[in-house]
Amino acid sequence: MNRGGLSLSELTAAIVERSEGRLRAVLQGDSSRRISSVAPLATAAASDLAFLANPRYRREAQASRAGAIVLAPRDAEALQQGQPSGSTFIVVDAPYAWFAMAAQVLHPTTDAARGIHSQAQVDATAAVDPTASVGAGTFVGAGARLGAGVILDAGAHVGARVVIGAATRLFPRAVVLDDCTVGERCIVHSGVVIGADGFGFAPLDGRWLKIPQLGRVIIGDDVEIGANTTIDRGTMGDTIVESGVKLDNQIQIGHNCFVGAHTVIAGCVGIAGSARIGRNCMIGGAAGIAGHLAIADGTIIGPATVVSGSIDKAGHYTGFFPIMKQREWEKAAAIIRQLDDLRRRIRELEAAARGEGK
Amino acid sequence: MNRGGLSLSELTAAIVERSEGRLRAVLQGDSSRRISSVAPLATAAASDLAFLANPRYRREAQASRAGAIVLAPRDAEALQQGQPSGSTFIVVDAPYAWFAMAAQVLHPTTDAARGIHSQAQVDATAAVDPTASVGAGTFVGAGARLGAGVILDAGAHVGARVVIGAATRLFPRAVVLDDCTVGERCIVHSGVVIGADGFGFAPLDGRWLKIPQLGRVIIGDDVEIGANTTIDRGTMGDTIVESGVKLDNQIQIGHNCFVGAHTVIAGCVGIAGSARIGRNCMIGGAAGIAGHLAIADGTIIGPATVVSGSIDKAGHYTGFFPIMKQREWEKAAAIIRQLDDLRRRIRELEAAARGEGK
Amino acid sequence: MNRGGLSLSELTAAIVERSEGRLRAVLQGDSSRRISSVAPLATAAASDLAFLANPRYRREAQASRAGAIVLAPRDAEALQQGQPSGSTFIVVDAPYAWFAMAAQVLHPTTDAARGIHSQAQVDATAAVDPTASVGAGTFVGAGARLGAGVILDAGAHVGARVVIGAATRLFPRAVVLDDCTVGERCIVHSGVVIGADGFGFAPLDGRWLKIPQLGRVIIGDDVEIGANTTIDRGTMGDTIVESGVKLDNQIQIGHNCFVGAHTVIAGCVGIAGSARIGRNCMIGGAAGIAGHLAIADGTIIGPATVVSGSIDKAGHYTGFFPIMKQREWEKAAAIIRQLDDLRRRIRELEAAARGEGK
Repeated sequence: MNRGGLSLSELTAAIVERSEGRLRAVLQGDSSRRISSVAPLATAAASDLAFLANPRYRREAQASRAGAIVLAPRDAEALQQGQPSGSTFIVVDAPYAWFAMAAQVLHPTTDAARGIHSQAQVDATAAVDPTASVGAGTFVGAGARLGAGVILDAGAHVGARVVIGAATRLFPRAVVLDDCTVGERCIVHSGVVIGADGFGFAPLDGRWLKIPQLGRVIIGDDVEIGANTTIDRGTMGDTIVESGVKLDNQIQIGHNCFVGAHTVIAGCVGIAGSARIGRNCMIGGAAGIAGHLAIADGTIIGPATVVSGSIDKAGHYTGFFPIMKQREWEKAAAIIRQLDDLRRRIRELEAAARGEGK
Repeated sequence: MNRGGLSLSELTAAIVERSEGRLRAVLQGDSSRRISSVAPLATAAASDLAFLANPRYRREAQASRAGAIVLAPRDAEALQQGQPSGSTFIVVDAPYAWFAMAAQVLHPTTDAARGIHSQAQVDATAAVDPTASVGAGTFVGAGARLGAGVILDAGAHVGARVVIGAATRLFPRAVVLDDCTVGERCIVHSGVVIGADGFGFAPLDGRWLKIPQLGRVIIGDDVEIGANTTIDRGTMGDTIVESGVKLDNQIQIGHNCFVGAHTVIAGCVGIAGSARIGRNCMIGGAAGIAGHLAIADGTIIGPATVVSGSIDKAGHYTGFFPIMKQREWEKAAAIIRQLDDLRRRIRELEAAARGEGK
Repeated sequence: MNRGGLSLSELTAAIVERSEGRLRAVLQGDSSRRISSVAPLATAAASDLAFLANPRYRREAQASRAGAIVLAPRDAEALQQGQPSGSTFIVVDAPYAWFAMAAQVLHPTTDAARGIHSQAQVDATAAVDPTASVGAGTFVGAGARLGAGVILDAGAHVGARVVIGAATRLFPRAVVLDDCTVGERCIVHSGVVIGADGFGFAPLDGRWLKIPQLGRVIIGDDVEIGANTTIDRGTMGDTIVESGVKLDNQIQIGHNCFVGAHTVIAGCVGIAGSARIGRNCMIGGAAGIAGHLAIADGTIIGPATVVSGSIDKAGHYTGFFPIMKQREWEKAAAIIRQLDDLRRRIRELEAAARGEGK
């Protein structure tokens, strides 16, 4: 946390710089007010920054004790027509993005100790940038390369010949296996396993022969990978996760998958081998994606939806069974098993109706 | 295992004490019989305790060679009308609970070695109770506090400023990240990750900006957390799991969720951010719960069910597609895509029928 | 990688031997050609082996620059009728199996350093075969036994009294807890947890009493277990995974389950306690299997399918909601809640039609 805090004019200037001019806010109120933290509208105090991204919460914003509130022009206008608020307004077209950057500025990641911990196990042939931090109980294999400012938290594992780009952090007990590559500014959370063998077997006489998994996993820049997510190495080619992808926890990505840039995938999603997910897609939690298919750029998949074939045209797709009272579900489930019969009966009624109309 | 075993009178007395008088059983048979272990009805021997909790298994109980059988009054009566059993009966209103306590008494957890292992990495500012056990390869961060009788198995990770309550055990390679709190008598299984960042991003020009995740995870007392389950820290407020909650394996709990006391959640459930699960709920395996909703106390959710909106009234809710033969499913799935058309055709038939009835 | 490579005659001979005569191929072309690696048809070069297992890819095979292509007799015949290919053909009834073995021969697993790493924590009472490899940061508990050629990668955990059979490998940070057994030639990937407590509680006065989990997990030979998969120990008896079973990533297997030999289970499947899966079954990804049921040998379960009752007869079963455009799904979901009403209306129409037909 930024103990002293920043004045609102310092903060807005910092965000103009950090966003390379994309986020320019208009301050309405006291620009010298000091802000040291972020908080929700309901609990924010005078030294806190809060945000209003949804008009539904205007009443909460009106009542908030936040030192400053980030909000969109239309919300600022609406609030100004009500009672005067004690808060300073930071008016910007993308209030949530502005808030995100403000939180990053106010709560910088704490520095890790540079250098290699005495209880780390680093191979003599690994190349570790002197500004990297290699924690206790970590493992860095032969020929691995750790870029500037890389942080390996306690117990992280970096296999042989792995490349970890600058400013990437592996949280405690994250695992990147041999030959894989992780780009710059990535965040790999605890329990992640990158580069385990894909699931490939050939049948022979009722047994299964292992297909050696010889490819790698290649992760782009600015990728975040949630706790206990797994990404398997390719069988022959590589599994690829492009830059800017955000993966939640407990996702499984099979061998030879491709996940296009800036796609976000919510928790518990499973993606079978060789699926190709486009760029800028949004995949809902617990969705399942079959193998050997392609999903168009910009596609939105609802939660718990099974994508069983390719999606050629971007759109919003969903498919899950609606929740019902147990007894009603029992009936509905029974009828679903008879749908073919019901359809036949409707056809017969139609035929009879047509016959009677003769 | 309790090598010498206990006589049945010793065992019943121990359970009266352990349950603070809530579990009082009536012994029918030889109270001096010694019991050293628990076993299923079918394989139990003369030194074993078995239980009968479901009348369906009365025949198995009749034939069992168990030294003693715990059972409900109505089952004891029914069995006494059959052939005489060689087993002593322990008659109690809650036989399964009595059996659970008996198993706890007969199979106490083996003691871990007190003190800090020479290959543990414990920060100098951490406060470790002298009765705690800190295993090989563990990490305990700055300012962490471990209560009396805490057990950290090999490779467990306790981040900076974490508080672990008395008698809580972290199994090998469990991870509790910075600033989180785990209550007393909790069991945290291997591969668990408590306190990874929640999944929060703001869009800006087709990219995603990370919202720093500044809250904590707060776990109550007597909580059990299954292997590879993940519980994310809150964005601003905290993620809260109240006392007595039991979580199975591979569950994902998003940032800022609340799970009420004594709720049980089966394996592979995913809970999106800011969901509020009531107290004393039961959630079936692989269910999915959307974010920003509330589920009433005492609600039962079936397996593989998607809870897409709030549940205001306790009840038993379910929703999953019934299993069918592949070919029949293909037909049913095709018809489901035409349900709107089928409904229209039924309406037309009805209109025609009404028209004809004029 | 086998740097020098093998001639095709050496390779075919090696596979005859490795397969104990089950895989005998006929070479059509230059048997002295040297092959050093495997590759997909599209990218293979003259020193690569590729395979054609699906007639759909015949055109790719025709155009491939692979040094040799493994394929079935009918595909070889078809290709010979087209333009002459530069590739040598390896004609065999089971081309995918032959390819799998060839890849194993051409890409042998790199040897791990024999012996116990100085930073391993091995109990004095553990029995470690001198040919085993015990990596940095591993833990081997009291009374554990590691067979010939066992590899424990960095950070693997082997609990007290665990038995690991010959030639089995535990990848980094895999966990096998106390008293469990893993057979020979198994592969246990990173993040796997074998032997965590099953999920068993008895209700008492609105709270949950833990049922001690006293059984073990017993894994057969030639089993592969994917990253972050969890297999719980039995409550009283054992959880059993028979030989030749292949488990993908992020699978959850509950206490006292039985998985029959040579069954393959895709990623993200959840299996509740005491389920009995037959031999030679195939379970699709993200399927869910309820507890206390049995599935016949040779059964195929589709992806994302909930098996809610026993399956007595082998067959192919499926059940998941089809994916639709969001708006259409909303309509379909609403109608599913009214299916009982629709059925009633069809019955009324039928009754009316019969009445009118009188």
